[in-house]
Amino acid sequence: MAEASTAPPDQRVPESIQHSVLAEFAAGVCRDIAGGLLSTTGDDLVPFLEREVGRLRQALEDPFALGEGSEPRHPPVFDRRGRIAVATNPVVSHRNAIAPPMKLVRSGDECEFTVELPLQYQGPPSKLHGGYSAVLLDEALWKAVRVNVSAISFTRELTIGYERPVPLFEPVTVLARVTEVDGRKTFAEGEILAGGEVCSRAHGLWISPRPRE
Amino acid sequence: MAEASTAPPDQRVPESIQHSVLAEFAAGVCRDIAGGLLSTTGDDLVPFLEREVGRLRQALEDPFALGEGSEPRHPPVFDRRGRIAVATNPVVSHRNAIAPPMKLVRSGDECEFTVELPLQYQGPPSKLHGGYSAVLLDEALWKAVRVNVSAISFTRELTIGYERPVPLFEPVTVLARVTEVDGRKTFAEGEILAGGEVCSRAHGLWISPRPRE
Repeated sequence: MAEASTAPPDQRVPESIQHSVLAEFAAGVCRDIAGGLLSTTGDDLVPFLEREVGRLRQALEDPFALGEGSEPRHPPVFDRRGRIAVATNPVVSHRNAIAPPMKLVRSGDECEFTVELPLQYQGPPSKLHGGYSAVLLDEALWKAVRVNVSAISFTRELTIGYERPVPLFEPVTVLARVTEVDGRKTFAEGEILAGGEVCSRAHGLWISPRPRE
Repeated sequence: MAEASTAPPDQRVPESIQHSVLAEFAAGVCRDIAGGLLSTTGDDLVPFLEREVGRLRQALEDPFALGEGSEPRHPPVFDRRGRIAVATNPVVSHRNAIAPPMKLVRSGDECEFTVELPLQYQGPPSKLHGGYSAVLLDEALWKAVRVNVSAISFTRELTIGYERPVPLFEPVTVLARVTEVDGRKTFAEGEILAGGEVCSRAHGLWISPRPRE
Protein backbone atom coordinates (compact mmCIF):
# COMPACT_ATOMS: atom_id res chain seq x y z
CA MET A 1 0.00 0.00 0.00
CA ALA A 2 1.16 3.55 -0.66
CA GLU A 3 2.05 5.55 2.43
CA ALA A 4 -0.57 7.79 3.95
CA SER A 5 -0.40 11.28 2.48
CA THR A 6 -0.65 14.45 4.54
CA ALA A 7 -1.98 16.49 1.62
CA PRO A 8 -5.65 17.56 1.72
CA PRO A 9 -7.89 14.85 0.19
CA ASP A 10 -8.74 16.86 -2.94
CA GLN A 11 -5.03 17.37 -3.73
CA ARG A 12 -4.12 13.72 -3.37
CA VAL A 13 -4.41 11.01 -5.97
CA PRO A 14 -4.62 7.38 -4.88
CA GLU A 15 -2.39 6.24 -7.73
CA SER A 16 -1.02 7.60 -10.99
CA ILE A 17 -2.98 6.90 -14.19
CA GLN A 18 0.03 4.96 -15.50
CA HIS A 19 0.05 2.66 -12.49
CA SER A 20 -3.69 2.04 -12.77
CA VAL A 21 -3.31 1.26 -16.48
CA LEU A 22 -0.42 -1.11 -15.67
CA ALA A 23 -2.53 -2.95 -13.05
CA GLU A 24 -5.42 -3.38 -15.48
CA PHE A 25 -3.03 -4.49 -18.24
CA ALA A 26 -1.52 -7.11 -15.90
CA ALA A 27 -5.03 -8.34 -14.99
CA GLY A 28 -5.72 -8.70 -18.73
CA VAL A 29 -2.54 -10.74 -19.25
CA CYS A 30 -3.61 -12.96 -16.32
CA ARG A 31 -6.94 -13.56 -18.08
CA ASP A 32 -5.08 -14.54 -21.27
CA ILE A 33 -2.77 -16.89 -19.36
CA ALA A 34 -5.75 -18.45 -17.54
CA GLY A 35 -7.46 -19.25 -20.84
CA GLY A 36 -4.26 -20.30 -22.62
CA LEU A 37 -3.27 -22.82 -19.93
CA LEU A 38 -6.53 -24.67 -20.71
CA SER A 39 -6.04 -24.77 -24.49
CA THR A 40 -2.25 -25.28 -24.63
CA THR A 41 -0.52 -28.56 -23.78
CA GLY A 42 2.91 -30.21 -23.78
CA ASP A 43 5.70 -28.62 -25.79
CA ASP A 44 3.50 -25.64 -26.67
CA LEU A 45 3.29 -24.52 -23.04
CA VAL A 46 6.76 -22.98 -22.71
CA PRO A 47 6.56 -20.77 -25.85
CA PHE A 48 3.01 -19.74 -24.90
CA LEU A 49 4.07 -18.70 -21.40
CA GLU A 50 7.23 -17.00 -22.72
CA ARG A 51 5.08 -14.79 -24.96
CA GLU A 52 2.81 -13.81 -22.08
CA VAL A 53 5.71 -13.19 -19.68
CA GLY A 54 7.30 -11.10 -22.45
CA ARG A 55 4.21 -8.89 -22.60
CA LEU A 56 4.38 -8.34 -18.84
CA ARG A 57 8.15 -7.66 -18.90
CA GLN A 58 7.77 -5.14 -21.71
CA ALA A 59 5.06 -3.32 -19.76
CA LEU A 60 7.24 -3.31 -16.63
CA GLU A 61 10.30 -1.99 -18.48
CA ASP A 62 8.37 1.09 -19.55
CA PRO A 63 5.07 1.28 -17.64
CA PHE A 64 4.63 4.92 -18.63
CA ALA A 65 4.59 4.09 -22.37
CA LEU A 66 1.70 1.72 -21.63
CA GLY A 67 -0.39 4.51 -20.18
CA GLU A 68 -0.01 6.92 -23.09
CA GLY A 69 -3.49 7.85 -24.25
CA SER A 70 -5.04 5.13 -22.08
CA GLU A 71 -7.51 5.67 -19.30
CA PRO A 72 -7.87 3.13 -16.48
CA ARG A 73 -11.40 1.75 -16.18
CA HIS A 74 -11.31 1.16 -12.43
CA PRO A 75 -8.60 3.29 -10.78
CA PRO A 76 -8.43 3.27 -6.96
CA VAL A 77 -10.36 5.94 -5.08
CA PHE A 78 -10.35 7.23 -1.53
CA ASP A 79 -13.00 5.71 0.72
CA ARG A 80 -14.94 7.72 3.32
CA ARG A 81 -12.13 7.32 5.84
CA GLY A 82 -9.55 8.61 3.38
CA ARG A 83 -8.00 5.20 2.73
CA ILE A 84 -7.18 3.94 -0.73
CA ALA A 85 -9.96 1.66 -1.97
CA VAL A 86 -9.41 -0.65 -4.94
CA ALA A 87 -12.38 -1.87 -7.00
CA THR A 88 -12.12 -5.58 -6.22
CA ASN A 89 -15.49 -6.66 -7.64
CA PRO A 90 -14.94 -10.14 -9.16
CA VAL A 91 -17.56 -9.70 -11.91
CA VAL A 92 -17.14 -6.18 -13.26
CA SER A 93 -13.74 -4.78 -12.16
CA HIS A 94 -11.12 -4.51 -14.91
CA ARG A 95 -8.45 -4.76 -12.22
CA ASN A 96 -9.73 -8.16 -11.02
CA ALA A 97 -8.30 -10.93 -13.22
CA ILE A 98 -11.12 -13.36 -12.35
CA ALA A 99 -13.76 -10.85 -13.55
CA PRO A 100 -14.56 -11.44 -17.27
CA PRO A 101 -15.24 -8.37 -16.84
CA MET A 102 -18.99 -7.85 -17.37
CA LYS A 103 -19.78 -4.35 -18.69
CA LEU A 104 -22.75 -2.17 -17.73
CA VAL A 105 -24.19 -0.72 -20.95
CA ARG A 106 -27.51 0.69 -19.67
CA SER A 107 -28.69 1.67 -16.21
CA GLY A 108 -32.12 2.73 -14.93
CA ASP A 109 -35.39 0.88 -14.32
CA GLU A 110 -33.71 -1.98 -16.14
CA CYS A 111 -29.95 -2.58 -16.07
CA GLU A 112 -28.26 -4.15 -19.09
CA PHE A 113 -24.81 -5.72 -19.18
CA THR A 114 -22.77 -7.38 -21.88
CA VAL A 115 -20.06 -9.97 -21.39
CA GLU A 116 -18.05 -12.45 -23.46
CA LEU A 117 -16.81 -15.49 -21.56
CA PRO A 118 -13.46 -17.10 -22.45
CA LEU A 119 -12.43 -20.73 -21.90
CA GLN A 120 -11.68 -20.44 -18.18
CA TYR A 121 -15.44 -20.13 -17.49
CA GLN A 122 -16.25 -23.44 -19.19
CA GLY A 123 -18.55 -26.07 -17.67
CA PRO A 124 -19.85 -28.34 -20.49
CA PRO A 125 -17.83 -28.05 -23.74
CA SER A 126 -18.00 -24.46 -25.08
CA LYS A 127 -20.70 -23.59 -22.51
CA LEU A 128 -20.65 -21.52 -19.32
CA HIS A 129 -20.34 -23.33 -15.98
CA GLY A 130 -23.74 -23.12 -14.25
CA GLY A 131 -22.32 -21.55 -11.10
CA TYR A 132 -20.90 -18.68 -13.15
CA SER A 133 -24.36 -18.01 -14.64
CA ALA A 134 -25.33 -17.32 -11.03
CA VAL A 135 -22.31 -14.98 -10.68
CA LEU A 136 -23.43 -12.84 -13.64
CA LEU A 137 -27.09 -12.78 -12.54
CA ASP A 138 -26.35 -12.11 -8.86
CA GLU A 139 -24.25 -9.09 -9.81
CA ALA A 140 -26.79 -7.78 -12.35
CA LEU A 141 -29.80 -8.10 -10.02
CA TRP A 142 -27.85 -6.51 -7.15
CA LYS A 143 -27.01 -3.57 -9.43
CA ALA A 144 -30.70 -3.10 -10.34
CA VAL A 145 -31.57 -3.11 -6.63
CA ARG A 146 -28.80 -0.63 -5.85
CA VAL A 147 -29.83 1.75 -8.65
CA ASN A 148 -33.55 1.66 -7.83
CA VAL A 149 -33.67 1.42 -4.02
CA SER A 150 -32.03 4.03 -1.81
CA ALA A 151 -31.28 1.79 1.22
CA ILE A 152 -28.29 -0.58 1.16
CA SER A 153 -29.63 -4.12 0.72
CA PHE A 154 -28.19 -7.59 1.19
CA THR A 155 -29.08 -10.69 -0.81
CA ARG A 156 -31.34 -13.03 1.16
CA GLU A 157 -32.25 -15.52 -1.56
CA LEU A 158 -31.43 -16.06 -5.23
CA THR A 159 -32.94 -18.67 -7.56
CA ILE A 160 -31.49 -19.51 -10.96
CA GLY A 161 -33.51 -21.36 -13.62
CA TYR A 162 -31.45 -23.00 -16.35
CA GLU A 163 -33.25 -23.19 -19.71
CA ARG A 164 -30.42 -23.63 -22.22
CA PRO A 165 -26.63 -23.41 -21.93
CA VAL A 166 -24.93 -20.01 -22.12
CA PRO A 167 -22.37 -20.04 -24.97
CA LEU A 168 -18.72 -19.06 -24.44
CA PHE A 169 -16.72 -16.94 -26.93
CA GLU A 170 -19.58 -14.63 -28.03
CA PRO A 171 -21.26 -11.58 -26.49
CA VAL A 172 -24.18 -12.39 -24.22
CA THR A 173 -26.60 -9.95 -22.60
CA VAL A 174 -27.59 -9.86 -18.94
CA LEU A 175 -30.74 -7.94 -17.96
CA ALA A 176 -32.05 -7.13 -14.48
CA ARG A 177 -34.90 -5.13 -12.95
CA VAL A 178 -36.65 -4.57 -9.62
CA THR A 179 -40.14 -6.12 -9.57
CA GLU A 180 -41.45 -5.10 -6.13
CA VAL A 181 -40.47 -3.06 -3.09
CA ASP A 182 -42.25 -4.01 0.14
CA GLY A 183 -40.85 -2.12 3.13
CA ARG A 184 -37.30 -3.36 3.70
CA LYS A 185 -37.76 -6.11 1.09
CA THR A 186 -36.84 -5.68 -2.58
CA PHE A 187 -37.59 -8.32 -5.20
CA ALA A 188 -35.68 -8.41 -8.49
CA GLU A 189 -35.45 -10.62 -11.55
CA GLY A 190 -33.32 -10.96 -14.65
CA GLU A 191 -32.12 -13.08 -17.54
CA ILE A 192 -29.04 -14.09 -19.52
CA LEU A 193 -29.72 -13.95 -23.28
CA ALA A 194 -27.71 -15.25 -26.21
CA GLY A 195 -28.77 -14.84 -29.84
CA GLY A 196 -32.07 -13.34 -28.65
CA GLU A 197 -33.00 -16.41 -26.58
CA VAL A 198 -33.22 -16.69 -22.81
CA CYS A 199 -30.59 -19.11 -21.44
CA SER A 200 -31.04 -18.56 -17.68
CA ARG A 201 -33.49 -16.67 -15.49
CA ALA A 202 -33.04 -15.42 -11.94
CA HIS A 203 -35.24 -14.00 -9.24
CA GLY A 204 -34.27 -13.00 -5.76
CA LEU A 205 -34.95 -11.14 -2.55
CA TRP A 206 -32.82 -8.35 -1.07
CA ILE A 207 -33.33 -6.99 2.45
CA SER A 208 -32.12 -3.69 3.89
CA PRO A 209 -31.14 -3.68 7.57
CA ARG A 210 -33.64 -2.37 10.13
CA PRO A 211 -32.84 1.33 10.81
CA ARG A 212 -31.13 1.98 14.16
CA GLU A 213 -33.47 3.49 16.74
CA MET B 1 -2.29 -28.32 -29.09
CA ALA B 2 0.17 -31.20 -29.44
CA GLU B 3 0.13 -32.96 -32.79
CA ALA B 4 -1.94 -36.12 -33.13
CA SER B 5 0.13 -39.18 -32.24
CA THR B 6 0.07 -42.39 -34.24
CA ALA B 7 1.08 -44.51 -31.22
CA PRO B 8 -1.61 -46.78 -29.69
CA PRO B 9 -3.57 -44.91 -26.99
CA ASP B 10 -2.07 -46.86 -24.08
CA GLN B 11 1.48 -45.99 -25.20
CA ARG B 12 0.78 -42.29 -25.52
CA VAL B 13 0.85 -39.66 -22.82
CA PRO B 14 -1.09 -36.43 -23.27
CA GLU B 15 1.67 -34.35 -21.77
CA SER B 16 4.82 -34.85 -19.67
CA ILE B 17 4.51 -34.59 -15.89
CA GLN B 18 6.90 -31.62 -15.99
CA HIS B 19 4.69 -29.72 -18.42
CA SER B 20 1.59 -30.42 -16.33
CA VAL B 21 3.40 -29.21 -13.21
CA LEU B 22 4.52 -26.07 -15.08
CA ALA B 23 0.94 -25.34 -16.20
CA GLU B 24 -0.40 -25.70 -12.64
CA PHE B 25 2.46 -23.58 -11.28
CA ALA B 26 1.66 -20.83 -13.80
CA ALA B 27 -2.03 -20.99 -12.81
CA GLY B 28 -0.92 -20.54 -9.18
CA VAL B 29 1.19 -17.48 -10.07
CA CYS B 30 -1.84 -16.06 -11.91
CA ARG B 31 -3.91 -16.49 -8.72
CA ASP B 32 -1.23 -14.64 -6.74
CA ILE B 33 -1.08 -11.83 -9.31
CA ALA B 34 -4.90 -11.57 -9.33
CA GLY B 35 -4.98 -11.12 -5.54
CA GLY B 36 -1.91 -8.87 -5.43
CA LEU B 37 -3.27 -6.42 -8.00
CA LEU B 38 -6.16 -5.75 -5.60
CA SER B 39 -3.98 -5.13 -2.53
CA THR B 40 -1.05 -3.31 -4.17
CA THR B 41 -1.19 0.25 -5.43
CA GLY B 42 0.98 2.97 -6.91
CA ASP B 43 4.76 2.66 -6.65
CA ASP B 44 4.45 -0.81 -5.11
CA LEU B 45 2.93 -2.26 -8.28
CA VAL B 46 6.11 -2.52 -10.37
CA PRO B 47 8.21 -4.37 -7.74
CA PHE B 48 5.25 -6.65 -6.96
CA LEU B 49 4.78 -7.57 -10.61
CA GLU B 50 8.55 -7.94 -11.14
CA ARG B 51 8.66 -10.54 -8.36
CA GLU B 52 5.78 -12.51 -9.87
CA VAL B 53 7.19 -12.29 -13.41
CA GLY B 54 10.53 -13.43 -11.95
CA ARG B 55 8.88 -16.56 -10.54
CA LEU B 56 7.41 -17.36 -13.96
CA ARG B 57 10.71 -16.67 -15.77
CA GLN B 58 12.63 -18.90 -13.38
CA ALA B 59 10.14 -21.72 -13.94
CA LEU B 60 10.39 -21.27 -17.71
CA GLU B 61 14.20 -21.27 -17.68
CA ASP B 62 14.21 -24.71 -16.12
CA PRO B 63 10.71 -26.20 -16.23
CA PHE B 64 12.06 -29.67 -15.50
CA ALA B 65 13.53 -28.58 -12.13
CA LEU B 66 10.05 -27.42 -11.16
CA GLY B 67 8.62 -30.89 -11.68
CA GLU B 68 11.15 -32.75 -9.52
CA GLY B 69 9.23 -34.70 -6.94
CA SER B 70 6.00 -32.91 -7.84
CA GLU B 71 2.88 -34.55 -9.15
CA PRO B 72 0.37 -32.54 -11.19
CA ARG B 73 -3.12 -32.51 -9.65
CA HIS B 74 -5.03 -32.27 -12.92
CA PRO B 75 -2.89 -33.48 -15.84
CA PRO B 76 -4.58 -33.73 -19.26
CA VAL B 77 -6.11 -37.07 -20.23
CA PHE B 78 -7.35 -38.59 -23.47
CA ASP B 79 -11.09 -38.30 -24.02
CA ARG B 80 -13.20 -41.07 -25.55
CA ARG B 81 -12.29 -39.93 -29.07
CA GLY B 82 -8.58 -40.05 -28.29
CA ARG B 83 -8.20 -36.28 -28.12
CA ILE B 84 -6.31 -34.49 -25.38
CA ALA B 85 -8.75 -33.23 -22.76
CA VAL B 86 -7.69 -30.61 -20.21
CA ALA B 87 -9.55 -30.32 -16.89
CA THR B 88 -11.00 -26.83 -17.35
CA ASN B 89 -13.41 -26.85 -14.39
CA PRO B 90 -13.46 -23.27 -13.01
CA VAL B 91 -14.11 -24.34 -9.40
CA VAL B 92 -11.89 -27.36 -8.73
CA SER B 93 -9.19 -27.59 -11.45
CA HIS B 94 -5.67 -26.70 -10.31
CA ARG B 95 -4.89 -25.77 -13.92
CA ASN B 96 -7.65 -23.16 -14.04
CA ALA B 97 -6.41 -19.87 -12.56
CA ILE B 98 -9.94 -18.65 -11.75
CA ALA B 99 -10.65 -21.80 -9.66
CA PRO B 100 -9.71 -21.19 -5.97
CA PRO B 101 -9.41 -24.35 -6.31
CA MET B 102 -12.01 -26.06 -4.11
CA LYS B 103 -10.80 -29.49 -2.90
CA LEU B 104 -12.93 -32.63 -2.51
CA VAL B 105 -12.05 -34.18 0.86
CA ARG B 106 -14.85 -36.77 1.21
CA SER B 107 -17.12 -38.40 -1.34
CA GLY B 108 -20.13 -40.70 -0.91
CA ASP B 109 -23.72 -40.14 0.26
CA GLU B 110 -22.47 -36.74 1.32
CA CYS B 111 -19.67 -34.88 -0.48
CA GLU B 112 -17.41 -32.54 1.48
CA PHE B 113 -15.12 -29.89 0.07
CA THR B 114 -12.75 -27.39 1.60
CA VAL B 115 -11.69 -24.08 0.10
CA GLU B 116 -9.93 -20.89 1.17
CA LEU B 117 -10.88 -17.80 -0.80
CA PRO B 118 -8.32 -15.04 -1.47
CA LEU B 119 -9.00 -11.36 -2.12
CA GLN B 120 -10.07 -11.71 -5.75
CA TYR B 121 -13.34 -13.36 -4.59
CA GLN B 122 -14.33 -10.39 -2.41
CA GLY B 123 -17.81 -8.88 -2.40
CA PRO B 124 -18.30 -6.94 0.89
CA PRO B 125 -15.02 -6.21 2.74
CA SER B 126 -13.28 -9.51 3.67
CA LYS B 127 -16.39 -11.49 2.64
CA LEU B 128 -17.14 -13.69 -0.35
CA HIS B 129 -19.12 -12.20 -3.27
CA GLY B 130 -22.62 -13.74 -3.18
CA GLY B 131 -22.42 -14.99 -6.75
CA TYR B 132 -19.31 -16.99 -5.89
CA SER B 133 -21.16 -18.67 -3.00
CA ALA B 134 -23.43 -19.99 -5.76
CA VAL B 135 -20.35 -21.16 -7.72
CA LEU B 136 -19.11 -23.26 -4.79
CA LEU B 137 -22.55 -24.68 -4.00
CA ASP B 138 -23.47 -25.40 -7.64
CA GLU B 139 -20.28 -27.41 -8.08
CA ALA B 140 -20.69 -29.28 -4.77
CA LEU B 141 -24.34 -30.23 -5.35
CA TRP B 142 -23.57 -31.31 -8.92
CA LYS B 143 -20.80 -33.54 -7.59
CA ALA B 144 -23.18 -35.17 -5.08
CA VAL B 145 -25.67 -35.79 -7.91
CA ARG B 146 -22.95 -37.23 -10.14
CA VAL B 147 -21.61 -39.55 -7.42
CA ASN B 148 -25.04 -40.84 -6.36
CA VAL B 149 -27.05 -40.99 -9.61
CA SER B 150 -25.87 -43.06 -12.58
CA ALA B 151 -27.47 -40.99 -15.37
CA ILE B 152 -25.85 -37.74 -16.52
CA SER B 153 -27.95 -34.86 -15.18
CA PHE B 154 -28.20 -31.16 -15.96
CA THR B 155 -29.03 -28.39 -13.50
CA ARG B 156 -32.61 -27.16 -13.94
CA GLU B 157 -32.90 -24.90 -10.90
CA LEU B 158 -30.68 -23.79 -8.02
CA THR B 159 -31.70 -21.66 -5.04
CA ILE B 160 -29.21 -20.06 -2.67
CA GLY B 161 -30.22 -18.80 0.77
CA TYR B 162 -27.81 -16.31 2.34
CA GLU B 163 -27.73 -16.43 6.15
CA ARG B 164 -24.39 -14.81 7.02
CA PRO B 165 -21.39 -13.74 4.94
CA VAL B 166 -18.75 -16.32 3.97
CA PRO B 167 -15.33 -15.13 5.25
CA LEU B 168 -12.30 -14.84 2.96
CA PHE B 169 -8.76 -15.91 3.99
CA GLU B 170 -9.74 -18.95 6.11
CA PRO B 171 -10.78 -22.52 5.29
CA VAL B 172 -14.50 -22.98 4.76
CA THR B 173 -16.39 -26.25 4.29
CA VAL B 174 -18.90 -27.00 1.56
CA LEU B 175 -21.26 -29.97 2.04
CA ALA B 176 -23.69 -31.50 -0.46
CA ARG B 177 -26.05 -34.50 -0.62
CA VAL B 178 -28.85 -35.93 -2.75
CA THR B 179 -32.23 -35.67 -0.98
CA GLU B 180 -34.58 -37.38 -3.48
CA VAL B 181 -34.53 -39.22 -6.79
CA ASP B 182 -37.85 -39.24 -8.68
CA GLY B 183 -37.47 -40.79 -12.13
CA ARG B 184 -35.31 -38.46 -14.20
CA LYS B 185 -35.37 -35.81 -11.46
CA THR B 186 -32.76 -35.58 -8.72
CA PHE B 187 -33.01 -33.14 -5.82
CA ALA B 188 -29.94 -32.11 -3.86
CA GLU B 189 -29.04 -29.68 -1.07
CA GLY B 190 -25.97 -28.35 0.65
CA GLU B 191 -24.34 -25.68 2.79
CA ILE B 192 -21.27 -23.51 3.14
CA LEU B 193 -19.97 -23.53 6.73
CA ALA B 194 -17.39 -21.35 8.45
CA GLY B 195 -16.38 -21.76 12.10
CA GLY B 196 -19.12 -24.41 12.48
CA GLU B 197 -21.90 -22.05 11.42
CA VAL B 198 -23.98 -22.22 8.23
CA CYS B 199 -23.33 -19.18 6.01
CA SER B 200 -25.30 -20.18 2.89
CA ARG B 201 -27.69 -22.99 1.99
CA ALA B 202 -28.56 -24.33 -1.46
CA HIS B 203 -31.15 -26.67 -2.88
CA GLY B 204 -31.66 -27.57 -6.50
CA LEU B 205 -33.12 -29.83 -9.15
CA TRP B 206 -31.13 -31.84 -11.71
CA ILE B 207 -32.75 -33.59 -14.68
CA SER B 208 -31.32 -36.40 -16.80
CA PRO B 209 -32.27 -36.39 -20.49
CA ARG B 210 -35.06 -38.70 -21.68
CA PRO B 211 -33.46 -41.94 -22.97
CA ARG B 212 -33.43 -42.26 -26.76
CA GLU B 213 -36.05 -44.72 -28.08
